[in-house]
Amino acid sequence: MSAVDVSRPPAVCLVSGGLDSATAAAIARSRGFEIYALSFDYGQRHRRELDAARAIAESLGAAQHVVLGFDLRLWGGSALTSGIDVPSGRSPEDMARDIPVTYVPARNIIFLSFALAWAETLEARHIFIGVNHLDYSGYPDCRGEFLRAFERMAALGTKAGVEGRPVSIEAPLVHMSKADIVREGARLGLDFGLTWSCYLGGERPCQQCDSCILRAKGFEEAGLPDPLLAG
Amino acid sequence: MSAVDVSRPPAVCLVSGGLDSATAAAIARSRGFEIYALSFDYGQRHRRELDAARAIAESLGAAQHVVLGFDLRLWGGSALTSGIDVPSGRSPEDMARDIPVTYVPARNIIFLSFALAWAETLEARHIFIGVNHLDYSGYPDCRGEFLRAFERMAALGTKAGVEGRPVSIEAPLVHMSKADIVREGARLGLDFGLTWSCYLGGERPCQQCDSCILRAKGFEEAGLPDPLLAG
Repeated sequence: MSAVDVSRPPAVCLVSGGLDSATAAAIARSRGFEIYALSFDYGQRHRRELDAARAIAESLGAAQHVVLGFDLRLWGGSALTSGIDVPSGRSPEDMARDIPVTYVPARNIIFLSFALAWAETLEARHIFIGVNHLDYSGYPDCRGEFLRAFERMAALGTKAGVEGRPVSIEAPLVHMSKADIVREGARLGLDFGLTWSCYLGGERPCQQCDSCILRAKGFEEAGLPDPLLAG
Repeated sequence: MSAVDVSRPPAVCLVSGGLDSATAAAIARSRGFEIYALSFDYGQRHRRELDAARAIAESLGAAQHVVLGFDLRLWGGSALTSGIDVPSGRSPEDMARDIPVTYVPARNIIFLSFALAWAETLEARHIFIGVNHLDYSGYPDCRGEFLRAFERMAALGTKAGVEGRPVSIEAPLVHMSKADIVREGARLGLDFGLTWSCYLGGERPCQQCDSCILRAKGFEEAGLPDPLLAG
């Protein structure tokens, strides 16, 4: 990791290893922030996305990358943390119909709460999160309305907030399509080959899970090749 | 732990091992809820409060007690998770003046987020938390205004919330003095000898830290003996 550049204000960036959060972190860097990358080892199905998160944090010159562990398998409740099968071969329209079994109860709320704790410790005023809801409206915790409510709660529930230094939740992708995200990441020089979107953790993306299907649609509509599928 | 009683609706009760959260959980039980006790092993100074939490959950007949681990020492920021000294010998008036060094950034936000995740998984509609702010106004995340903002955020950010089954945050002690809390716990038959309030983890309470001083004041004003100091 690079040395801390004091001229750049710190921002906590949630980096999952996927394409969206990597693009959000690249946007944070392009806006002049020093990146403090935060990832979670929460009992998800595979570790491959954590390896991707490490590679992304390093490629973006993060000042620090913390992987915080906790075990959501203690109570289950999602296909991503239990034995339930991940859906396969669904169209984006089908995905948007219901909240999917891959929904993890309160996951982004937990992630943002830890980001808030770190931000307060760092005296950072910004948290970047790569949520977006246009392509895929099934997750309630990916909507701007929720993020504004989180900000208001954080302003009332933290020392920084009550002392007049509230933390802002930056979700630069929230209204972007997957194709827009691919274009923006490419414009910022992000190496998509470092990212991992597949819900499974195989050698290559399965190309059947919701996440693979949305990613493929994004690259196709952006007219760009996905380096993960090359060769 | 006792068998689950299906006639009692589930409630997630945050149980720290201290007097306040034990009383809040006893109130939940007295209101007819089945207790799902949740504690955290987050890198606090001592484990004694986790032993207390286990004993309290068992004494209240909790259906389940989960101790969720994560390590807030990864970024420090509080006397309770780092090497900073805990204040000693302060009056309640002094304590109320500033946010204390024992403030852990976003701690209750993180705790409530996990409680929310478990509540959603259990289809529980209630979370009990033992915060109170009259005696000790220094913690921003112990105020009713914050708790209402958390509820609004949770209603927007969870599947249960957007589907019309929002979770309610019950803070029955929020406007009670420590003496009121002691009286209420006693009325409900709570064994205060199982609870642990001291910020240090010695054989006996230090009687000098903020938490010991507030506890002593509460028992004194309630006109009851503290079983931890007997014998």
